[in-house]
Amino acid sequence: MLKNDGFRSMDRQECLRLLAKVPVGRVVYTRHALPAVLPVNFSLDTDSSVLLRTSAGSDLVRAVDGVVVAFEADEFDAGSRSGWSVVVTGRATAVTDPDEHERLLRTGPSSWMPIQQDVFIRIEAEMVTGRELTDLRVTG
Amino acid sequence: MLKNDGFRSMDRQECLRLLAKVPVGRVVYTRHALPAVLPVNFSLDTDSSVLLRTSAGSDLVRAVDGVVVAFEADEFDAGSRSGWSVVVTGRATAVTDPDEHERLLRTGPSSWMPIQQDVFIRIEAEMVTGRELTDLRVTG
Repeated sequence: MLKNDGFRSMDRQECLRLLAKVPVGRVVYTRHALPAVLPVNFSLDTDSSVLLRTSAGSDLVRAVDGVVVAFEADEFDAGSRSGWSVVVTGRATAVTDPDEHERLLRTGPSSWMPIQQDVFIRIEAEMVTGRELTDLRVTG
Repeated sequence: MLKNDGFRSMDRQECLRLLAKVPVGRVVYTRHALPAVLPVNFSLDTDSSVLLRTSAGSDLVRAVDGVVVAFEADEFDAGSRSGWSVVVTGRATAVTDPDEHERLLRTGPSSWMPIQQDVFIRIEAEMVTGRELTDLRVTG
């Protein structure tokens, strides 16, 4: 990430630990050749990949299946001007294996939206980066 | 945005009103041919463009100056599974006009990060879309 802005970089384990704490992140991809971003609730699988749950016919599945996407989550506090952000970058794929689908129906994320014909999207945690911003008015 | 997921679309004015309420959003762009996303604090200018403040030599300026980017902000509540998100899509440009720069030093966003040689980035609000998710367990 940016090297010259006073953030502290976090390692993969620290990033994944923070990621597991928040319910909503944002899928970042390209749509009609434009940058696109969609907030979604998610969970982490046992291999640390990001799991989303959506409808089989959704625009999101069409846009990201088989494509490298970024997934971002963060928490910031305006009062203390501090917080963190984590970005997972990796290939997104719709889960097609029936056993895997069955497992995720039990253990994967529920959706905050009404869903027609559940599809799980897995984003591989190929690259995980994160940054922490502490209150610079105190420490910096 | 997605049409089949139970969200309510919001009009431009409603989107901008919500955007003005939150201090942090996320710039979405492409970096080394990969989707990239960076949370930043921001403010809205009088023409509703999104204003960011960063360092002249930052990776962000190099990556987005002259390029169409997306800028996203949202607020979600996990307890009620409700919230909203707004996406501004438009060209990002580093402000080079000295009078404009001077005006933004007075009226633009401050930065939460230490800055060397301030640069303001303006994201034109060419396309503004937004969605609201209400608690579907109650209303749906």
